[in-house]
Amino acid sequence: MNPTIELLHQHRSIRKFTHQRISSDLFEAVLRAGQCAATSSHLQAYTLIHVTDMAKREVLVELTGGQKYVADASDFLVFCADMKRPSEAARNSGADAVSGTTEQLLVASVDVALMAQNMVIAAESEGLGVCYIGGIRNAPAEVSELLNLPDQVYPVFGLCLGYPDQNPETKPRMPLEAILKENNYTSADTQAHVEGFDATMEEYYLARTEGNKSSNWSKQLHPLFTTRLRLHMKEFLKKRGLGIR
Amino acid sequence: MNPTIELLHQHRSIRKFTHQRISSDLFEAVLRAGQCAATSSHLQAYTLIHVTDMAKREVLVELTGGQKYVADASDFLVFCADMKRPSEAARNSGADAVSGTTEQLLVASVDVALMAQNMVIAAESEGLGVCYIGGIRNAPAEVSELLNLPDQVYPVFGLCLGYPDQNPETKPRMPLEAILKENNYTSADTQAHVEGFDATMEEYYLARTEGNKSSNWSKQLHPLFTTRLRLHMKEFLKKRGLGIR
Repeated sequence: MNPTIELLHQHRSIRKFTHQRISSDLFEAVLRAGQCAATSSHLQAYTLIHVTDMAKREVLVELTGGQKYVADASDFLVFCADMKRPSEAARNSGADAVSGTTEQLLVASVDVALMAQNMVIAAESEGLGVCYIGGIRNAPAEVSELLNLPDQVYPVFGLCLGYPDQNPETKPRMPLEAILKENNYTSADTQAHVEGFDATMEEYYLARTEGNKSSNWSKQLHPLFTTRLRLHMKEFLKKRGLGIR
Repeated sequence: MNPTIELLHQHRSIRKFTHQRISSDLFEAVLRAGQCAATSSHLQAYTLIHVTDMAKREVLVELTGGQKYVADASDFLVFCADMKRPSEAARNSGADAVSGTTEQLLVASVDVALMAQNMVIAAESEGLGVCYIGGIRNAPAEVSELLNLPDQVYPVFGLCLGYPDQNPETKPRMPLEAILKENNYTSADTQAHVEGFDATMEEYYLARTEGNKSSNWSKQLHPLFTTRLRLHMKEFLKKRGLGIR
């Protein structure tokens, strides 16, 4: 393994940060590395809101379900999918630009994710820790209002960046055979893979908690499919002019 | 800049590959590095179809609009957002799992992208070249049929991997100020940024073609908003049980 691949293998989310601030030079280097990621048709369909206003950070702690590290991290960014800027550009060149397609919603969301992941690698290569905050979609309308997001722009996730004040283990992943298939999607082995990974995760939780937490993958996913569904997303996006057609 | 950040800065899409095949060890190392990316709530909502059947590769060349490198690359993967596996896991633990939410569509699409980008970094760190193939969404129903994708699974993009047989320049990006905002989304400077970047890209195209290609960013985006809209995506996803509610 070369050092870059080794670095990728060391990833884990950091939720406790020291008070050390990230220098503006390093912060900028991380952002510029993010911009180097592939972008569909050169759209660069992203805008990042750097939330430096601590009052806003505290509101975001609440809106994301009480995730204190949103305020404690040296820096917090809200990654927005942005089809407004490229649409305006296309109109400049005379396009009667169609907006609000599901395709645009997906393209912009993927563009955002590719950029963010490049930033994460750059940040971790400099000893920083990060945590993606999907909880930004708990209250996307409130987040959009707080940050004055216009139509055709939506908050996909947040990202905490800072110097780690904890050193958690990396978390197991499904065996490669479970997620990689050749030429065809086959489902026959899904149950076996799920059960096998349940056993892996049960062991992981027991070991981490000295036998106090008995859970597994399936049990951990349970609430995601019932109580934490973010059923508002469809209506929210529609109101913001995304994914309409 | 450390070597990892330097590597990120060197990214460009590769569309011409040598005949050298990627060894199975390296291919596996790249995939495993991909799995180390952050995954929302540990969902790992992705399945990768490794297309080794050359007849299928040729069909995919056609379906993606004649992109020959889909067949020529050493390896070609179709990255699928997969909510089927985690849904089954949740049901195992007794959840009356709701499926087809827009939130799930977005979560899975982002999961796929984070994993893919980690793979891209790992691949490039070993001297491989890659090209994302968004054209997989030109004909998502046909691609799904070709690869036997079940409901709750959709092809987000493809990825060519191989040894580069070309050395294209990196492509300019918007200035950082255009995509980074502090605390609020402000639109006042959008036009100026678009015009500035149009000038950058005009210069880039002229220099690359010895004055033969006069274009700019806005002009390049024009067709994306008119003829190549992939307006089928909404209906396609609905049929596959994704983004319904």
